Amino acid sequence: FAPPSAAGIAALLGAVRFNADGLVACIAQQHDTGEVLMMAWMNRAAVEETLATGQVCYFSRSRQGLWRKGETSGQVQRLVELRLDCDGDTLLALVDQLGVACHTGRRNCFYQSIRGDSLASIAAPLMDPAALYGDAHKGHNHG
Amino acid sequence: FAPPSAAGIAALLGAVRFNADGLVACIAQQHDTGEVLMMAWMNRAAVEETLATGQVCYFSRSRQGLWRKGETSGQVQRLVELRLDCDGDTLLALVDQLGVACHTGRRNCFYQSIRGDSLASIAAPLMDPAALYGDAHKGHNHG
Repeated sequence: FAPPSAAGIAALLGAVRFNADGLVACIAQQHDTGEVLMMAWMNRAAVEETLATGQVCYFSRSRQGLWRKGETSGQVQRLVELRLDCDGDTLLALVDQLGVACHTGRRNCFYQSIRGDSLASIAAPLMDPAALYGDAHKGHNHG
Repeated sequence: FAPPSAAGIAALLGAVRFNADGLVACIAQQHDTGEVLMMAWMNRAAVEETLATGQVCYFSRSRQGLWRKGETSGQVQRLVELRLDCDGDTLLALVDQLGVACHTGRRNCFYQSIRGDSLASIAAPLMDPAALYGDAHKGHNHG
Protein backbone atom coordinates (compact mmCIF):
# COMPACT_ATOMS: atom_id res chain seq x y z
CA PHE A 1 0.00 0.00 0.00
CA ALA A 2 1.31 3.40 -1.02
CA PRO A 3 -0.56 6.31 0.58
CA PRO A 4 -2.49 8.36 -2.01
CA SER A 5 -1.53 11.96 -2.65
CA ALA A 6 -3.16 14.71 -0.60
CA ALA A 7 -5.12 15.68 -3.72
CA GLY A 8 -6.30 12.10 -4.15
CA ILE A 9 -7.45 11.90 -0.54
CA ALA A 10 -9.24 15.25 -0.91
CA ALA A 11 -10.96 14.02 -4.07
CA LEU A 12 -12.29 10.97 -2.25
CA LEU A 13 -13.38 12.96 0.81
CA GLY A 14 -15.16 15.45 -1.44
CA ALA A 15 -17.31 12.64 -2.84
CA VAL A 16 -18.20 11.04 0.50
CA ARG A 17 -21.67 11.91 1.77
CA PHE A 18 -21.21 11.78 5.53
CA ASN A 19 -24.48 11.29 7.43
CA ALA A 20 -25.96 13.69 10.01
CA ASP A 21 -23.52 12.30 12.60
CA GLY A 22 -20.57 12.93 10.29
CA LEU A 23 -20.11 9.21 9.61
CA VAL A 24 -19.91 6.94 6.58
CA ALA A 25 -20.42 3.16 6.63
CA CYS A 26 -17.38 1.04 5.78
CA ILE A 27 -17.45 -2.63 4.82
CA ALA A 28 -14.17 -4.51 5.35
CA GLN A 29 -13.51 -7.34 2.91
CA GLN A 30 -10.51 -9.66 2.88
CA HIS A 31 -8.88 -8.64 -0.39
CA ASP A 32 -7.88 -12.07 -1.69
CA THR A 33 -10.60 -14.44 -0.49
CA GLY A 34 -13.54 -12.05 -0.77
CA GLU A 35 -14.69 -12.83 2.78
CA VAL A 36 -16.79 -10.00 4.21
CA LEU A 37 -15.24 -9.42 7.62
CA MET A 38 -17.26 -6.67 9.30
CA MET A 39 -19.05 -3.36 8.88
CA ALA A 40 -18.24 -0.30 10.95
CA TRP A 41 -18.23 3.48 10.65
CA MET A 42 -15.66 6.13 9.80
CA ASN A 43 -15.65 9.88 10.30
CA ARG A 44 -13.54 12.21 8.18
CA ALA A 45 -10.50 11.84 10.45
CA ALA A 46 -10.75 8.04 10.34
CA VAL A 47 -10.79 8.04 6.53
CA GLU A 48 -7.79 10.37 6.47
CA GLU A 49 -5.81 8.30 8.97
CA THR A 50 -6.65 5.05 7.17
CA LEU A 51 -5.40 6.40 3.85
CA ALA A 52 -2.34 8.09 5.33
CA THR A 53 -1.15 5.10 7.36
CA GLY A 54 -2.47 2.10 5.44
CA GLN A 55 -3.86 0.74 8.73
CA VAL A 56 -7.65 0.77 8.97
CA CYS A 57 -9.05 3.19 11.53
CA TYR A 58 -12.77 3.42 12.31
CA PHE A 59 -14.86 5.71 14.47
CA SER A 60 -16.37 4.01 17.51
CA ARG A 61 -19.92 5.23 18.06
CA SER A 62 -20.00 3.77 21.58
CA ARG A 63 -16.72 5.38 22.61
CA GLN A 64 -17.14 8.44 20.36
CA GLY A 65 -13.54 8.39 19.28
CA LEU A 66 -11.14 7.01 16.71
CA TRP A 67 -10.84 3.24 16.87
CA ARG A 68 -7.56 2.01 15.49
CA LYS A 69 -8.56 -1.53 14.59
CA GLY A 70 -6.23 -3.97 16.34
CA GLU A 71 -4.67 -1.40 18.68
CA THR A 72 -5.74 -3.45 21.71
CA SER A 73 -6.10 -6.90 20.20
CA GLY A 74 -3.26 -6.86 17.69
CA GLN A 75 -5.72 -7.94 14.96
CA VAL A 76 -4.91 -5.13 12.56
CA GLN A 77 -6.30 -4.57 9.07
CA ARG A 78 -3.77 -3.53 6.47
CA LEU A 79 -5.44 -1.48 3.73
CA VAL A 80 -5.16 -2.65 0.15
CA GLU A 81 -7.69 -0.30 -1.45
CA LEU A 82 -10.54 1.96 -0.34
CA ARG A 83 -13.49 2.21 -2.71
CA LEU A 84 -16.58 4.42 -2.59
CA ASP A 85 -20.04 3.46 -3.82
CA CYS A 86 -22.21 5.17 -6.42
CA ASP A 87 -24.06 7.49 -4.06
CA GLY A 88 -21.14 8.16 -1.75
CA ASP A 89 -22.57 6.83 1.48
CA THR A 90 -20.68 3.53 1.80
CA LEU A 91 -17.00 2.64 1.62
CA LEU A 92 -15.57 -0.77 0.78
CA ALA A 93 -12.16 -1.38 2.34
CA LEU A 94 -10.21 -4.21 0.74
CA VAL A 95 -7.92 -5.30 3.55
CA ASP A 96 -5.48 -7.90 4.70
CA GLN A 97 -6.84 -8.96 8.09
CA LEU A 98 -4.26 -10.24 10.57
CA GLY A 99 -5.87 -12.99 12.65
CA VAL A 100 -9.55 -12.40 13.35
CA ALA A 101 -11.82 -9.43 12.66
CA CYS A 102 -14.55 -10.14 15.23
CA HIS A 103 -14.32 -9.28 18.92
CA THR A 104 -15.79 -12.75 19.65
CA GLY A 105 -12.63 -14.32 18.24
CA ARG A 106 -14.27 -15.35 14.98
CA ARG A 107 -12.71 -14.63 11.64
CA ASN A 108 -15.69 -12.48 10.58
CA CYS A 109 -18.68 -10.94 12.35
CA PHE A 110 -21.45 -12.51 10.25
CA TYR A 111 -21.78 -15.85 12.02
CA GLN A 112 -25.46 -15.83 12.98
CA SER A 113 -28.00 -17.45 10.67
CA ILE A 114 -31.35 -19.21 10.88
CA ARG A 115 -31.18 -22.97 11.28
CA GLY A 116 -34.56 -24.59 11.79
CA ASP A 117 -36.52 -22.59 14.33
CA SER A 118 -33.49 -20.86 15.88
CA LEU A 119 -30.74 -18.39 15.25
CA ALA A 120 -27.54 -20.45 15.22
CA SER A 121 -23.85 -19.70 15.39
CA ILE A 122 -22.48 -21.07 12.12
CA ALA A 123 -18.78 -20.37 12.78
CA ALA A 124 -16.63 -21.14 15.80
CA PRO A 125 -14.20 -18.71 17.44
CA LEU A 126 -10.63 -19.19 16.27
CA MET A 127 -9.22 -17.29 19.25
CA ASP A 128 -10.26 -16.78 22.87
CA PRO A 129 -11.72 -13.26 23.25
CA ALA A 130 -10.14 -13.06 26.73
CA ALA A 131 -6.76 -13.54 25.10
CA LEU A 132 -7.58 -10.81 22.57
CA TYR A 133 -8.53 -8.13 25.05
CA GLY A 134 -7.84 -9.27 28.60
CA ASP A 135 -10.24 -8.76 31.49
CA ALA A 136 -10.02 -4.99 31.31
CA HIS A 137 -11.62 -5.01 27.88
CA LYS A 138 -14.48 -7.45 28.40
CA GLY A 139 -17.44 -6.28 26.43
CA HIS A 140 -15.30 -4.35 23.97
CA ASN A 141 -16.85 -4.47 20.57
CA HIS A 142 -16.79 -2.54 17.34
CA GLY A 143 -19.59 -0.11 18.30
CA PHE B 1 -33.88 -21.15 -1.15
CA ALA B 2 -36.48 -22.57 1.22
CA PRO B 3 -38.20 -19.93 3.39
CA PRO B 4 -37.33 -20.35 7.08
CA SER B 5 -40.04 -21.24 9.57
CA ALA B 6 -41.99 -18.45 11.27
CA ALA B 7 -40.11 -19.29 14.46
CA GLY B 8 -36.78 -19.03 12.66
CA ILE B 9 -37.68 -15.64 11.20
CA ALA B 10 -38.85 -14.47 14.65
CA ALA B 11 -35.55 -15.63 16.17
CA LEU B 12 -33.57 -13.59 13.66
CA LEU B 13 -35.77 -10.51 14.04
CA GLY B 14 -35.43 -10.75 17.82
CA ALA B 15 -31.67 -10.47 17.51
CA VAL B 16 -31.63 -7.54 15.07
CA ARG B 17 -30.90 -4.18 16.66
CA PHE B 18 -32.82 -1.78 14.44
CA ASN B 19 -31.57 1.81 14.66
CA ALA B 20 -33.58 4.84 15.76
CA ASP B 21 -35.20 4.95 12.31
CA GLY B 22 -36.18 1.29 12.55
CA LEU B 23 -33.56 0.25 10.00
CA VAL B 24 -30.70 -2.24 9.81
CA ALA B 25 -27.85 -2.10 7.29
CA CYS B 26 -27.67 -4.93 4.78
CA ILE B 27 -24.66 -5.82 2.63
CA ALA B 28 -25.42 -7.81 -0.51
CA GLN B 29 -22.70 -10.21 -1.62
CA GLN B 30 -22.76 -12.45 -4.69
CA HIS B 31 -22.83 -15.87 -3.04
CA ASP B 32 -20.42 -17.72 -5.31
CA THR B 33 -17.85 -15.14 -6.38
CA GLY B 34 -17.73 -13.15 -3.13
CA GLU B 35 -18.22 -9.85 -4.97
CA VAL B 36 -19.66 -7.18 -2.68
CA LEU B 37 -22.51 -5.76 -4.72
CA MET B 38 -24.07 -2.97 -2.64
CA MET B 39 -25.16 -1.82 0.79
CA ALA B 40 -28.69 -0.69 1.58
CA TRP B 41 -31.17 -0.68 4.45
CA MET B 42 -34.02 -2.89 5.60
CA ASN B 43 -36.83 -2.29 8.05
CA ARG B 44 -38.62 -5.14 9.82
CA ALA B 45 -41.11 -5.60 6.99
CA ALA B 46 -38.30 -5.76 4.40
CA VAL B 47 -36.50 -8.48 6.37
CA GLU B 48 -39.73 -10.44 6.69
CA GLU B 49 -40.58 -10.13 2.99
CA THR B 50 -37.04 -11.05 1.95
CA LEU B 51 -37.10 -14.23 4.03
CA ALA B 52 -40.66 -15.16 3.08
CA THR B 53 -40.22 -14.71 -0.67
CA GLY B 54 -36.52 -15.37 -1.25
CA GLN B 55 -36.34 -12.12 -3.26
CA VAL B 56 -34.37 -9.36 -1.59
CA CYS B 57 -36.47 -6.37 -0.51
CA TYR B 58 -34.92 -3.23 1.02
CA PHE B 59 -36.34 -0.08 2.53
CA SER B 60 -35.76 3.05 0.47
CA ARG B 61 -34.87 5.96 2.74
CA SER B 62 -35.44 8.46 -0.07
CA ARG B 63 -38.86 7.06 -0.97
CA GLN B 64 -39.71 5.92 2.59
CA GLY B 65 -41.16 2.65 1.41
CA LEU B 66 -40.34 -0.94 0.59
CA TRP B 67 -38.00 -1.29 -2.33
CA ARG B 68 -38.33 -4.61 -4.08
CA LYS B 69 -34.93 -4.81 -5.71
CA GLY B 70 -35.33 -5.28 -9.43
CA GLU B 71 -39.05 -4.51 -9.51
CA THR B 72 -38.48 -1.71 -12.03
CA SER B 73 -35.18 -2.77 -13.59
CA GLY B 74 -35.64 -6.54 -13.60
CA GLN B 75 -32.25 -6.90 -11.84
CA VAL B 76 -33.51 -9.01 -8.94
CA GLN B 77 -31.49 -10.53 -6.13
CA ARG B 78 -32.41 -14.09 -5.23
CA LEU B 79 -31.60 -14.77 -1.60
CA VAL B 80 -29.27 -17.65 -0.74
CA GLU B 81 -28.74 -16.91 2.95
CA LEU B 82 -29.25 -14.00 5.35
CA ARG B 83 -26.65 -13.68 8.13
CA LEU B 84 -26.51 -11.31 11.10
CA ASP B 85 -23.38 -9.88 12.65
CA CYS B 86 -22.12 -10.17 16.22
CA ASP B 87 -23.80 -7.05 17.56
CA GLY B 88 -26.98 -7.33 15.51
CA ASP B 89 -26.76 -4.09 13.56
CA THR B 90 -25.69 -5.37 10.14
CA LEU B 91 -27.03 -8.11 7.87
CA LEU B 92 -25.08 -9.91 5.17
CA ALA B 93 -27.29 -11.17 2.35
CA LEU B 94 -25.68 -13.84 0.21
CA VAL B 95 -27.51 -13.47 -3.08
CA ASP B 96 -27.61 -14.48 -6.70
CA GLN B 97 -27.71 -11.16 -8.57
CA LEU B 98 -29.42 -11.22 -11.93
CA GLY B 99 -27.60 -8.80 -14.23
CA VAL B 100 -26.29 -5.72 -12.44
CA ALA B 101 -26.75 -4.46 -8.89
CA CYS B 102 -25.97 -0.77 -9.44
CA HIS B 103 -28.40 1.79 -10.81
CA THR B 104 -25.55 3.11 -12.99
CA GLY B 105 -25.54 -0.20 -14.89
CA ARG B 106 -22.40 -1.48 -13.21
CA ARG B 107 -22.23 -4.92 -11.70
CA ASN B 108 -21.54 -3.50 -8.21
CA CYS B 109 -21.78 -0.07 -6.62
CA PHE B 110 -18.17 0.24 -5.38
CA TYR B 111 -16.52 1.52 -8.54
CA GLN B 112 -14.94 4.76 -7.31
CA SER B 113 -11.34 4.72 -6.11
CA ILE B 114 -8.36 7.06 -5.93
CA ARG B 115 -6.04 6.99 -8.93
CA GLY B 116 -3.30 9.58 -8.77
CA ASP B 117 -4.77 12.90 -7.70
CA SER B 118 -8.36 12.04 -8.66
CA LEU B 119 -11.30 9.85 -7.84
CA ALA B 120 -11.64 7.51 -10.81
CA SER B 121 -14.29 5.15 -12.07
CA ILE B 122 -12.58 1.74 -12.04
CA ALA B 123 -15.41 -0.28 -13.61
CA ALA B 124 -17.49 0.36 -16.69
CA PRO B 125 -21.27 0.04 -16.93
CA LEU B 126 -22.38 -3.30 -18.34
CA MET B 127 -25.85 -1.99 -19.13
CA ASP B 128 -27.34 1.37 -20.13
CA PRO B 129 -29.11 2.90 -17.12
CA ALA B 130 -31.76 4.34 -19.46
CA ALA B 131 -32.54 0.80 -20.57
CA LEU B 132 -32.79 -0.28 -16.92
CA TYR B 133 -35.23 2.35 -15.81
CA GLY B 134 -36.44 4.34 -18.79
CA ASP B 135 -36.79 8.12 -18.79
CA ALA B 136 -39.44 8.09 -16.05
CA HIS B 137 -36.94 6.73 -13.58
CA LYS B 138 -33.93 8.92 -14.24
CA GLY B 139 -32.16 9.57 -11.01
CA HIS B 140 -33.52 6.47 -9.41
CA ASN B 141 -31.03 5.06 -6.99
CA HIS B 142 -30.88 2.81 -3.96
CA GLY B 143 -31.54 5.61 -1.43
